[in-house]
Amino acid sequence: MRTIEWKDNKVIFINQTKLPTKLEYITCANYECIAKAIEVLAIRGAPLIGVATAFGLALAAVKSKAKTKKQILSDLKKAAARLRNTRPTAVNLFWAVERILKKANPQPDVKSTVKAVVLEAQAMAEEDVQINKKIGEYGASLIKDSSTILTHCNAGALACVDYGTALGVIRAAWEQGKKIKVIADETRPLLQGARLTTWELKQLGIPVTLITDNMAAYVMSKGLVDCVIVGADRIASNGDVANKIGTYSVAVLAKQHKIPFYVAAPISTIDFEIKSGAEIPIEQRNPSEVTKTGNTKIAPDGINVFNFAFDVTPNELVSSIISERGIAKPPYKVSLGRWMQK
Amino acid sequence: MRTIEWKDNKVIFINQTKLPTKLEYITCANYECIAKAIEVLAIRGAPLIGVATAFGLALAAVKSKAKTKKQILSDLKKAAARLRNTRPTAVNLFWAVERILKKANPQPDVKSTVKAVVLEAQAMAEEDVQINKKIGEYGASLIKDSSTILTHCNAGALACVDYGTALGVIRAAWEQGKKIKVIADETRPLLQGARLTTWELKQLGIPVTLITDNMAAYVMSKGLVDCVIVGADRIASNGDVANKIGTYSVAVLAKQHKIPFYVAAPISTIDFEIKSGAEIPIEQRNPSEVTKTGNTKIAPDGINVFNFAFDVTPNELVSSIISERGIAKPPYKVSLGRWMQK
Repeated sequence: MRTIEWKDNKVIFINQTKLPTKLEYITCANYECIAKAIEVLAIRGAPLIGVATAFGLALAAVKSKAKTKKQILSDLKKAAARLRNTRPTAVNLFWAVERILKKANPQPDVKSTVKAVVLEAQAMAEEDVQINKKIGEYGASLIKDSSTILTHCNAGALACVDYGTALGVIRAAWEQGKKIKVIADETRPLLQGARLTTWELKQLGIPVTLITDNMAAYVMSKGLVDCVIVGADRIASNGDVANKIGTYSVAVLAKQHKIPFYVAAPISTIDFEIKSGAEIPIEQRNPSEVTKTGNTKIAPDGINVFNFAFDVTPNELVSSIISERGIAKPPYKVSLGRWMQK
Repeated sequence: MRTIEWKDNKVIFINQTKLPTKLEYITCANYECIAKAIEVLAIRGAPLIGVATAFGLALAAVKSKAKTKKQILSDLKKAAARLRNTRPTAVNLFWAVERILKKANPQPDVKSTVKAVVLEAQAMAEEDVQINKKIGEYGASLIKDSSTILTHCNAGALACVDYGTALGVIRAAWEQGKKIKVIADETRPLLQGARLTTWELKQLGIPVTLITDNMAAYVMSKGLVDCVIVGADRIASNGDVANKIGTYSVAVLAKQHKIPFYVAAPISTIDFEIKSGAEIPIEQRNPSEVTKTGNTKIAPDGINVFNFAFDVTPNELVSSIISERGIAKPPYKVSLGRWMQK
């Protein structure tokens, strides 16, 4: 089964908070259920958040009791407002809302609107898989045989409908017969690397070694890393990359050790409307994610905490950006500009 | 009470594995008990490991049933071998063994040996506190008023008999009335920053904010860090610094953001017998420290793990080294050379 699926007017998806100990599925019959799943990170990963948002709007359409076109558009906009409010950083969420509303707007009546919205959401899910396979194909050309690739957080099938972006590139290289190995940062606080990336790679049979985030510099200094590849939550038009907290740290360390740093993401992750990463809102999450691991309290009561969920890697630290359209090199203003959608 | 004390021919110390939820003391009556406490990190921090080792040998002397000088030296050497085998990186351990054996060797008989060893161990504990206060005094001159200091792991009173090395500098600056703030890296896998540093600073009333290790780069890029100060487990004669895993990472990030990176440690942490950090043995610990946090399993069963407990920061990333003799600047071969003990 894919990470997320539309079935009988419901949405079924993996509960990512339970992995790796339990493979559990959640079924949602309304958009509020999807919104909550995004907020608690049962659904996470920029491309998956995009498709889940589209499915959330499709549920809103299916459940709507609207009698008129105006009413169903109003219901969709209400659902869109709720979904937009879940998480601020991944631009795919906002992209998905726009794309669905654009499809709904010109429909002549309620019935055709429901049908169009559901079909569009399903199409977006299908496209996601094809896009990731394309990213994998292009990106694999950058991966040398017998190399070791460091990755941060999870940009795998679990961050998408299927196949993955950064892990899609690794997977494509592996499918081409390249004898590669992966080093996975655990990615505190929510440990998506330890819990999800290792789980996915183990299922695929790709050799993986888990490290704490603070070990990346040392393994690089020991010559154990040939390249870094990560996903993205939002890419500015100048190539600045917002991704899971710690990505910027890895990029600085890669530069220090002269290791290429690649970003793999669909075009829907590029925000052509912003000039630089300075305009990307960085989500701050609950301090308890830092002060607890599982049910274990790891810090004194009432301690002050920063919990930035993302950081921004400036474009000068990014060797290439891989999308379904190919491989972009600096200057990104030019190379990403060519990918801009009409 | 201090972190470790000698009382009625027993050694009492804080069980650092239980903090911050529980302040629990362990009492050891023999050296094996001390050795185990060092292995499980109930006792940790290079200066504390040194003093604990001396106390371990003092327990071996007190408990010895030797009738001759030769026998008690043999008992001490057996205890020394066991203690030497606990952890390889902190040089203070080996320094403490040498210092105690040097005191024992010239003694005329069993009784005088026991007395000399116990007194020397107690003297070392006293010295540690005085040394740390000296380090604090010198180091505080580097700390600007109203500045924010990032620290990694715990180099506080808990890593020593009392007062602390890196946290001793922070404490001294605070006692001088400087309005400083601290950002503490949580320091995976064993979370000494989250558990111990925040706990100590909270007790002292010094403002502290906890971050995950992978957040350091981002908070530096936001201009939130004015300097970095850490302790050390072993410093080579060229100024290369072995310290808790992740220290090297912080040093690279400090360089990228043009932030001074200071190391505070007693002379007993300097290994004048090695030319560079390449000669420092780096301990690898149990993978379960990485795959579990508390009792929570965070990675799939059987996953491959690196668990390097330390890393080496090359001297070119170190702005100053602070000891009880003053502040050393590059080139360290010269400046540390002046501190060499006879």
